Amino acid sequence: MHTFADPLRRAFAVAPNELAVVCGDTRLTYAQTFGRCSRLAGALHRLGLSTGDRVAIVAINSHRYLDVYYAVPAAGLVLVPLNSRWSNAELRYALEDSQTRVLITDRDPGELAEVVEHVILLPEAYEAFIADAPEHELGVGVDENDLAGLFYTGGTTGASKGVMLTHRNLIANAQNMQAVGRLTAGDRWLVVAPLFHAAGTVAALAMVWVAGRHVVLGAFDPAGALDLIEREQVTTTLAVPTMLAAITDEQLVRPRDVSSVRMLSHGGSPIASEVVRRTARAFPDAELIHLYGATETAPIATALVHEERHLHDDLIRSCGQPSVGVDVKIVDIDGKDVEVGRVGEIVVRGPNVMQGYWNKPEQTAAALVDGWYRSGDLGYADDRSFIYLVDRAKDMIVTGAENVYCGEVEDALYSHPAVLEATVFGVPDHQWGEAVCAMVVTRSPVTVSELQQHCRATISPYKVPKDIVFSDEPLPKSGAGKILKREIREPYWQGHSARVG
Amino acid sequence: MHTFADPLRRAFAVAPNELAVVCGDTRLTYAQTFGRCSRLAGALHRLGLSTGDRVAIVAINSHRYLDVYYAVPAAGLVLVPLNSRWSNAELRYALEDSQTRVLITDRDPGELAEVVEHVILLPEAYEAFIADAPEHELGVGVDENDLAGLFYTGGTTGASKGVMLTHRNLIANAQNMQAVGRLTAGDRWLVVAPLFHAAGTVAALAMVWVAGRHVVLGAFDPAGALDLIEREQVTTTLAVPTMLAAITDEQLVRPRDVSSVRMLSHGGSPIASEVVRRTARAFPDAELIHLYGATETAPIATALVHEERHLHDDLIRSCGQPSVGVDVKIVDIDGKDVEVGRVGEIVVRGPNVMQGYWNKPEQTAAALVDGWYRSGDLGYADDRSFIYLVDRAKDMIVTGAENVYCGEVEDALYSHPAVLEATVFGVPDHQWGEAVCAMVVTRSPVTVSELQQHCRATISPYKVPKDIVFSDEPLPKSGAGKILKREIREPYWQGHSARVG
Repeated sequence: MHTFADPLRRAFAVAPNELAVVCGDTRLTYAQTFGRCSRLAGALHRLGLSTGDRVAIVAINSHRYLDVYYAVPAAGLVLVPLNSRWSNAELRYALEDSQTRVLITDRDPGELAEVVEHVILLPEAYEAFIADAPEHELGVGVDENDLAGLFYTGGTTGASKGVMLTHRNLIANAQNMQAVGRLTAGDRWLVVAPLFHAAGTVAALAMVWVAGRHVVLGAFDPAGALDLIEREQVTTTLAVPTMLAAITDEQLVRPRDVSSVRMLSHGGSPIASEVVRRTARAFPDAELIHLYGATETAPIATALVHEERHLHDDLIRSCGQPSVGVDVKIVDIDGKDVEVGRVGEIVVRGPNVMQGYWNKPEQTAAALVDGWYRSGDLGYADDRSFIYLVDRAKDMIVTGAENVYCGEVEDALYSHPAVLEATVFGVPDHQWGEAVCAMVVTRSPVTVSELQQHCRATISPYKVPKDIVFSDEPLPKSGAGKILKREIREPYWQGHSARVG
Repeated sequence: MHTFADPLRRAFAVAPNELAVVCGDTRLTYAQTFGRCSRLAGALHRLGLSTGDRVAIVAINSHRYLDVYYAVPAAGLVLVPLNSRWSNAELRYALEDSQTRVLITDRDPGELAEVVEHVILLPEAYEAFIADAPEHELGVGVDENDLAGLFYTGGTTGASKGVMLTHRNLIANAQNMQAVGRLTAGDRWLVVAPLFHAAGTVAALAMVWVAGRHVVLGAFDPAGALDLIEREQVTTTLAVPTMLAAITDEQLVRPRDVSSVRMLSHGGSPIASEVVRRTARAFPDAELIHLYGATETAPIATALVHEERHLHDDLIRSCGQPSVGVDVKIVDIDGKDVEVGRVGEIVVRGPNVMQGYWNKPEQTAAALVDGWYRSGDLGYADDRSFIYLVDRAKDMIVTGAENVYCGEVEDALYSHPAVLEATVFGVPDHQWGEAVCAMVVTRSPVTVSELQQHCRATISPYKVPKDIVFSDEPLPKSGAGKILKREIREPYWQGHSARVG
């Protein structure tokens, strides 16, 4: 049945001379893109890679990143897109965990070069690598149930997990995206969210399948995004809320012609209602869509369509209804359906749901129960299955589009000799949705900046607490001795909706 | 993965109080429809039916027909929708071939009652049948690869064949329809093509999946169709060309407010360019879409979108490009791809392609080769994969939305004692696209009406030749003695495009 090769093959067949991608000064047709993908596949096979071997990429967004995204799975290999903001230690862990053989990157690989067999540097070495390669027939020998990629997400113990998605999982998401986004060959999608993140590739296959056009922004910059929208007549995109807020702010101050934009979606992290309101004002011709999901669901689970029509009703706090193609329900701790309006865990089922976590059978068994993915998010549904998130069962902060697992940050704090007790939680942040905050009880004098510096040695900068509050009292705890984080966190959220997604 | 139950379950979950269907004075919500389908499933199981048992329906379009279409497969049973224009002999053959246990019908079953275990008459007995039935949980125990239905199409030897479509096949078509039709919850689909035909149910699952509304017209009547469009604010439909022509003629003479119509698709038989032109005039706000496919492809294979933009270029003769989700190519007699512009057989691949013909392994083996469905249609593709049909490899006439296999009609003619030689072929017909025509060499005097009457005794009225031409000369034949039908047929088609689809 369908694999990554099908959208590419169709676009090449129906629109060989139409532009597939615009990136800086580069403008490539589908015939050119198809040729480049076929040669990349050929070049990888020429290296001696065989079916199922892993190929990682660490890079900022570019048209080459998109080629890698399509060609690696279409060649029968497994793509491993890694967070370009990660430290080398974090990248090294993922490269070793996945036993990646080839790393494609736009940065100095440093010590990472020791972990893999081949490093291919973007852009020059990459171009040389594919220039004279034989064309490999995309999709040959690839089954829909083969692994297409390992998508690493932050892990609660500091070790990230590789989410295993098959061709069928990602093809299903392409169909789910098509159902909600109703894409056509006339659409021009702005690639603005990072391509290593599910938010960045949410429509990558769907757009190629309809033979639409990708317009790629490299490093993020709101003015640059708006200039591209105007110049390339962008019609649609998905942005993470922080990007959307920045683009909207820029548009309200220095407006461009954005009348080409028919649909703006957002997802990947919480959004403030105020950002939605301002976005509706900045893009009056656009339908706004809130997408909720997870890497594990490839990623779309629910969609709030025409969000701009709900600026003045309760639905604005919802992340929408189960998307066409996805089963979503709320269950209690025993996995039984709860009544309308009752809080439970959000669980997701469908051909888009992952196969499990790479080499982590226990965590897989905990996450996939009776065919349902247990999201770890708590929420409730109303009588039309509009889902409202109320909290994360997983102890996680979403800042920008990044997941920060509190346990990992707590570990870093606890490793400082002056720290007696520490708890980490998210607080409302206008720019990032949530910011990482810590409350600490010390055993000896220490400053906030000393603790931040200590953390920076072991975790990524974005995971380091922006605020650290010292408490003179022991932290409140449950009878079983567990720190009552919710109680500590609550005062910071008063007057804020607890909406995430 | 997905089965027929998923669209129903989603619509019930997200839009319980929205109207699912409007039919005459009946207006049913999704909650009501879901309940009725669950009770129909329960009633069928109460009869003692088990997984895979066949349930046939012979009826004109109604909301009850739609319920049967959804509920029978969702109950784990196999739907057998039969042509309501067939003679009892033809129906009997299909009921016996499929070993159908239950027949749901709105006509006097006559001798057909002997063939099945249960006859349920529409509407009264049907309503009583489901009224007090227990609700069966739809989709439980049903696999995506289970058979959902047997869809009988006319057979070349007079015996029709049951096309085996699984849940996955029809779910795939729902996704293909969604990709081309971009349906939303706001859409209102006019059910106007017969529901026993693939044209009638092309969007049935897709519309429920988005929780849109069906507006059902019973017996066809162009004024009635337009009144419904105006009254119910219909947004979209698929009509067979003869219906489209009639609706357009009525609209041009007595215009209604049809501004709600955003998309009009047609398929199932050839269409004259003049009809497209007039339709574009009658529905100036609508996108016209030409769909080509076959029952065997569930049915969508190609789509010519925005057909109204091609009234003055060559594409108007094309049946469009491979639909998103479907592989279509042109091959030679050995199954090898032909070059652009060269005529070959149109073959189709994808999750929408049937499993084969019920109890017909030889015909299945001939139709499904290396995963491709051999359509029997001849055509060529241009350099953007626009497909042009030039002829049918299968000896078949499409009149209205009906397939007439020439061999069957020839058999009927040959069975008359006065007939020495006979050949049957389609000729252009303004109303029906094609009309059945025969050329006959007699051995003794006979009139046209005597031959027509003779045919009527064994085949359906629509298969009986409208014109019978007597030839004084023996029919032209190939060296192998085969009648050169193409040579006989050709003069009738001069000045006509050979376009079908």
